[in-house]
Amino acid sequence: MRGVVLHAPGDVRVEERDDPVIVAPTDAVIRLSATCVCGSDLWPYRGVEEVDGPSPMGHEYVGVVAEVGGEVRDVRPGQFVVGSFFASDNTCELCRAGYQSSCVHRVPIGGIGAQAEYLRVPLADGTLVATPGTPPDDLVPSLLAASDVLGTGWFAAVAAEVGPGKTVAVVGDGAVGLLGVLAARQLGAARIIAMSRHESRQALALEYGATDIVTERGDEGVARVKDLTDGLGAHSVIEAVGTQESMMQAIRSTRPGGHVGYVGVTHDVALPGMDLFFSHVHLHGGPAPVRRFLPELVDLICDRRIDPGKVFDLTLPLDRAPEGYEAMDERRAIKTLLTV
Amino acid sequence: MRGVVLHAPGDVRVEERDDPVIVAPTDAVIRLSATCVCGSDLWPYRGVEEVDGPSPMGHEYVGVVAEVGGEVRDVRPGQFVVGSFFASDNTCELCRAGYQSSCVHRVPIGGIGAQAEYLRVPLADGTLVATPGTPPDDLVPSLLAASDVLGTGWFAAVAAEVGPGKTVAVVGDGAVGLLGVLAARQLGAARIIAMSRHESRQALALEYGATDIVTERGDEGVARVKDLTDGLGAHSVIEAVGTQESMMQAIRSTRPGGHVGYVGVTHDVALPGMDLFFSHVHLHGGPAPVRRFLPELVDLICDRRIDPGKVFDLTLPLDRAPEGYEAMDERRAIKTLLTV
Repeated sequence: MRGVVLHAPGDVRVEERDDPVIVAPTDAVIRLSATCVCGSDLWPYRGVEEVDGPSPMGHEYVGVVAEVGGEVRDVRPGQFVVGSFFASDNTCELCRAGYQSSCVHRVPIGGIGAQAEYLRVPLADGTLVATPGTPPDDLVPSLLAASDVLGTGWFAAVAAEVGPGKTVAVVGDGAVGLLGVLAARQLGAARIIAMSRHESRQALALEYGATDIVTERGDEGVARVKDLTDGLGAHSVIEAVGTQESMMQAIRSTRPGGHVGYVGVTHDVALPGMDLFFSHVHLHGGPAPVRRFLPELVDLICDRRIDPGKVFDLTLPLDRAPEGYEAMDERRAIKTLLTV
Repeated sequence: MRGVVLHAPGDVRVEERDDPVIVAPTDAVIRLSATCVCGSDLWPYRGVEEVDGPSPMGHEYVGVVAEVGGEVRDVRPGQFVVGSFFASDNTCELCRAGYQSSCVHRVPIGGIGAQAEYLRVPLADGTLVATPGTPPDDLVPSLLAASDVLGTGWFAAVAAEVGPGKTVAVVGDGAVGLLGVLAARQLGAARIIAMSRHESRQALALEYGATDIVTERGDEGVARVKDLTDGLGAHSVIEAVGTQESMMQAIRSTRPGGHVGYVGVTHDVALPGMDLFFSHVHLHGGPAPVRRFLPELVDLICDRRIDPGKVFDLTLPLDRAPEGYEAMDERRAIKTLLTV
């Protein structure tokens, strides 16, 4: 089959890979309908994360079940399914507590490589959520978004304790930040401040429910959020970048007693103890347990109540994946969908 | 009046200070019954925090109201009262949300100096809680503990989301850690792991409700907590030290999705982003909003349902305060009560 492989920073290729087969009796193999490039794929692409030999890429996927192992009970060939970036058994104590991305048996899909024609999904019963029937083509981008960026933005909003009557600020205008806006809206936020300097992203944030746009960053961005919140800061802040500056901007934009939900992968971040101590914020985040939210998100999408697929502003066939990486790296595209 | 003044690291004296008077119409002046030395007083005493000229010391206090300003409505001369280390109006939006120690009008009592015969308390109506009648002498140490260390341990337990059925680990065996054990017990924890290497402190932890003692620290301490929790870590961890090692021990002893409540003042701490991200913990803490809990704590004490005063294992008259500092600095005493 064809699949995307990263050889070195900047050197991403579409090449022939072995067809996946059932390895464990709890596996499924799915024929992908669509996959995509993630902001976190850019870390190794940019050389920020080390590339240790040729690596299959991708961890976001929707598709049709082709084959299942002998112990798979709930997932059947022919079903259209959505999964997330960690396979999880969905039965261990951590999964039952809603932390499937810390499942004691978790398997990172990124190590298997979802930017391909076929994908082996471990722990299929715990990982995959089937749609009600085969969805129409126009819903595929939104279902694909549920696989990671929507689920991640949603987790950030839940981690930030977004709820009715609250003021929410969103740091980061990538796909996750924009879908954090959408999640905040769905979760009933009274006011949503999107922090963005890019016009097209501002437009989508407003469409997803943002009520205010703040273009400033750092100290000035914090000051603007305080201006909008009686000097106190937002109740809930979603952090969807993962840099030192963005984390501190998120913490400092939050009122004492408020909540920061952070989902940007925090490379090279060190949080100063005294600033955190006196900020009085709640801090929660990490790799989103997307599986917790998938059934609800799939329903919202299939009922056409949300349209997260709009974050894909570039669609290319799998074979042109390198162009998709390039466009995202240069911030010409928010997110690239790859048709298979 | 007599009062404690720190002149330089290690140089603490009891000397004549001006009698406090009503400055603002919302002030009260109280005649102290008892005060004490806090672990955080040791930071400047040890020179870890800079000493900028002679500084009146102390922020923990109980006593009898001597005089009130013209706008004080709820507090009356003759009442026995307990306050905390930040004066707060208890009416602003942050106070109403339960974060009185971040009150928009907060005043640090440490800057006024409660280790003295009399104390001016700003924002008296918002800050002071009266006991039902004048308490018997034997309850004074427990009421004094409510002023800071009990309220702080209680906040840590609440911040760590301690509750029925949960396993709690407590990092730190000072007064706050020990009272974190007491709070965890009161809040219904199923299992309480106290981390301590000191026999007398272990004994008090057990008396306060600890079910397990772990003497190891760092990696070994984390491993022991994991051993006791099916390899997952505790649901709730109370951090009551404030060093890099203790913060990381707390975070790493917590299961994914679990909660760390940290109240040790985090001098020289920098939390590594990636460790925090993948720990999947909730982190909350800071200066305890003791005022939130004071009415409940005063009731529990006056009903003799808790006995937090046992953390005072050294009692001295105010004039011998320097000996009290020395004993705590050398860890010969958990906490020194000063009678006035």
